[in-house]
Amino acid sequence: MFQTLPGFREFYPEDCAIRNYLFATWRASAQSFAFQEFDGPLLEPLELITAKSGDEIVGQLFNFEDKGGRGVTLRPELTPTLARLVGAKAGSIKRPVKWFGIAENFRYEKPQKGRLRSHYQFNADLLGETSPAADAEIIGLLIGTLCAFGLTREQFVLRLSDRDLWLLLLEQQGLTGDTALTALNIIDKMERETPEAMLKAFSERGVPGGETVLEQATALVACDSLEAVEAFFAGKGESAVAERVTARLAQWRELLGHLDAMGLADFIRVDLSIVRGLAYYTGFVFEAFQTVGKGRALAGGGRYDHLVEKLGYQSMPAVGFGMGDVTLRDLLEDCKLLPDPKPELDAYVVIGGEAERVVALRDVARFRAQGIKVDYGLKQQGFGKQFKTAGASGARFALIYGQEEVAAGKLKLRDMSSGEEELVDAEGALARLSA
Amino acid sequence: MFQTLPGFREFYPEDCAIRNYLFATWRASAQSFAFQEFDGPLLEPLELITAKSGDEIVGQLFNFEDKGGRGVTLRPELTPTLARLVGAKAGSIKRPVKWFGIAENFRYEKPQKGRLRSHYQFNADLLGETSPAADAEIIGLLIGTLCAFGLTREQFVLRLSDRDLWLLLLEQQGLTGDTALTALNIIDKMERETPEAMLKAFSERGVPGGETVLEQATALVACDSLEAVEAFFAGKGESAVAERVTARLAQWRELLGHLDAMGLADFIRVDLSIVRGLAYYTGFVFEAFQTVGKGRALAGGGRYDHLVEKLGYQSMPAVGFGMGDVTLRDLLEDCKLLPDPKPELDAYVVIGGEAERVVALRDVARFRAQGIKVDYGLKQQGFGKQFKTAGASGARFALIYGQEEVAAGKLKLRDMSSGEEELVDAEGALARLSA
Repeated sequence: MFQTLPGFREFYPEDCAIRNYLFATWRASAQSFAFQEFDGPLLEPLELITAKSGDEIVGQLFNFEDKGGRGVTLRPELTPTLARLVGAKAGSIKRPVKWFGIAENFRYEKPQKGRLRSHYQFNADLLGETSPAADAEIIGLLIGTLCAFGLTREQFVLRLSDRDLWLLLLEQQGLTGDTALTALNIIDKMERETPEAMLKAFSERGVPGGETVLEQATALVACDSLEAVEAFFAGKGESAVAERVTARLAQWRELLGHLDAMGLADFIRVDLSIVRGLAYYTGFVFEAFQTVGKGRALAGGGRYDHLVEKLGYQSMPAVGFGMGDVTLRDLLEDCKLLPDPKPELDAYVVIGGEAERVVALRDVARFRAQGIKVDYGLKQQGFGKQFKTAGASGARFALIYGQEEVAAGKLKLRDMSSGEEELVDAEGALARLSA
Repeated sequence: MFQTLPGFREFYPEDCAIRNYLFATWRASAQSFAFQEFDGPLLEPLELITAKSGDEIVGQLFNFEDKGGRGVTLRPELTPTLARLVGAKAGSIKRPVKWFGIAENFRYEKPQKGRLRSHYQFNADLLGETSPAADAEIIGLLIGTLCAFGLTREQFVLRLSDRDLWLLLLEQQGLTGDTALTALNIIDKMERETPEAMLKAFSERGVPGGETVLEQATALVACDSLEAVEAFFAGKGESAVAERVTARLAQWRELLGHLDAMGLADFIRVDLSIVRGLAYYTGFVFEAFQTVGKGRALAGGGRYDHLVEKLGYQSMPAVGFGMGDVTLRDLLEDCKLLPDPKPELDAYVVIGGEAERVVALRDVARFRAQGIKVDYGLKQQGFGKQFKTAGASGARFALIYGQEEVAAGKLKLRDMSSGEEELVDAEGALARLSA
C-alpha cells in the first residue's frame, strides 16, 4: 500500500471543502482591502531563497538538482518570489503595490502538531510606501481577515513591536551594527530564557555590558502602552539618539492613530517582546496571537525595507505578513467557527424508469448549465431507494420524474425540508431552483 | 538578477486573475454535476507514480531523494493520488465516487508552446460504476465545462473511441494479450505515419499479419458513425468474438443514447482513430479537440477499470478526464472569451485632509468588513490627484470626504460612470455600495 509522505496532507472532500473555505475567506478579505492576487512557481532557483535567508536555510529545504543540473528547491515561502516579481518591474509598476498570495510552502522539518512539511500560507504585502499608513493598512488587513472568520477580540490580539526602537535602545548602550543584531537575537529569546542564560549568551557572543542591556530590555518589555514606552525613554534623559527616538515615537503615534481610526485599538497590544528573529525586518513588527487555548501565533509580519534591493533590484520599501492555515484551522475548529463541509446540492432527481430517464437527463443538463447543482442515480432503482439517496444527499429539492408526471409534460418538485410538493414544468422547476 | 526556471510561469495579477477565472469555472461546473473536490500532496513517493506508468516515466519527472533518503517526485498527474485515496477507503466509501481536482502537475520536458514544465489540470473522475451511464456523466461534464467558458460546437468537438472494440477487432485477427497492445500502440500513430512505416513497425515489433491488420484498422477508422461501425462489423460475418462485438455495440448505443438525452449529440464525433497510447485505458476513450485554429486537444480521458486494483486496492471501475489550462487558455484568448482581468473595485475614497481621514478610515473599515472592495490613498494628496487615481482605478464609485461633508456628518457619493453625485451618510453609502 502507498502512504502519503510524512508531513504532507491528503484532502478528502470534507477536508478540501474546509481548505477552500479558508482560501475563499482569505481572498475575499484581501480583495476588500484592494489587494491583488499574484502567484509564482512552486519550484525556484535555490539561490533566490538563500539570497534572502542565507545558506543556513538549505538544511530545511526540499532542494535538489534538476535534470538540467540546476540547483532548485520547493519554495519555503512566497516572499522571495514576491520581491523578484515586484523588483523586476520596479521601474514601471504603479505604487503602492498591494499584492496577496495563497501559497503552498514546503519545509523539511520534523513533522509535529501545527508544523507540517507542507502548509498553505496567506501572504499580503504592501510595497513602495514608507509611511506608517502602509503598516496600518497591512495590520488592518490582518485583523480584518481573522475577524472575517468570525474571530473576535476575545480570541486573539495583535502584539505590536518595533525593531527600530530596539536598535535605538541598543545604540544608547553603545551597541551598533552586527553586535546590535546579535544582542537582538538574544533578546528575542528573553521570554523563554533565564536571566543567567541571557547574560551568558551576551558574554559568549561578544555583546558588552550584558547586565545593563538585560536591565534595559526587561524595562522596555514591561511597557504595555505607547505612553509607558514614551515615559521609559523620557526617563533616560538626554542622549545622542534621543532625537531619533522622539521622531520614531511620532511614527508610533501615527500608526496607532490610524489603527484607532479603523476601529482596531482594542486589538492592539503594545508588546516589545516581539522581536522576530529574521534579520530582514527593519521597523514595526507584529504577531497575531490567540488568547484562548494554546496561545499560538496565528500570523506574523513587519516592515522589510531592504529585501528588494538586497536581491539586486532598486530600493523598494515593504511591509507584509504571513498567515498559515494549520494553526488557524485548529483555532477555528476549537471555536466552532468552521462551516459544515457537506457539499451543497440543489436537487436530487428521482427517475421512474428508462423512458422517464430520457426526459430527466434533458432537464438535468439544462439545470446544470445554469450552475444549479444536480445529481441523480446512474443505475435505475426503485423509488424508495432513490428517495433514500435523495434524503441522504442533503439536496434542497427532489425532482420526481414518474410516468404520470412525464406523460403530462411535468415533474414533481418536493421541498426536502418542508415535504411540500408541487407539479411544475421544467421552466417552473428552474425558477424554484434558482431562487 | 533571478530568473524564473525554464518552463515555469509567473502570475502577475492580470495573469493570476485569468488563472483564477479558469479555476472558478472548472469548480462551478464540476459542482453543478455534483462532483466533490479533493486534493493530495504535490510531492509523492516515486513508486506511486511508477506503479501506474512504469519506470519509463522517470526520465520526465522532477524526482529526487529527500533528506530522509526517500525517493520522491513532484506529481506529474493527479490520477495516481486519486486512485490511492479512493483505494484506501474502497471498503467504506459511498459509490459512485464523483470527485474532481484542480492540480498543478510537473513534467521535466523540453518547454515549448502549449507544453510547460508546470501546468494546471482539471481532473474529474467517476469511480465504482461500470455502466455507460457513468461514461456519459463524465463526457457530459467535459462538454459542459467547455461550454461554461462560452465555447460552442463551432469551436470544439468530442472524438469518441473505444479500446474494447479495437481489442475485439484485433482478436478477430488472432491478436491477443501483449501482442494486441503492441498493435494498438502502433495503430495509435496511424494518423501521423505512412502505411509503409506502419507495416514495418508491425513486423519489427512482432505483430503477425500486419497487412490485414492495417487494412482492417483503416476501415474501422473510416467509420464516422455508430451505424458505420455496426455495418463494418456486420460485414465481417460470423466469428468467435461476434457475440461480444454485438454486446459492446449495445453499450455504444446506451452511451450515445444518454449523450443524446443530455442534448450533446451534436458535440460527439465517432472517431476510432483515438486510441490513447496509455495502456491503462480499458474501454471508451475520448478527446475534446478544438475545431478552430491549430486543432489541438483540449482534454482527454476514458475508462480505466484496473488502476485502483493495480495499485493494490480492491477492484474499482473508473472513468475520468483531464483538461489542462494552457491549451484552453490559448483557445479562449483566440476566441475572445477571456474576461477583463482588471480587478473589481467598488469604491475609491477621496479624502480632504488629515482631519477627514479619521472619519474616512472608520467608514472604510466598516465597508470592507461587509466585503465591499475599497481603496484609498495612503498619502495625503490634492483632490485633483485623488480623483485621477479614482478614475484610473476602475472603481464604480468615488466616496468624497471633504471638509463640508464631514462637518455635516455626510460624504459625497459619485457614480463614476454617470458622474451623478449625492450626499449620503455612511449608512446610505453602504446601501448603495451593497446594491
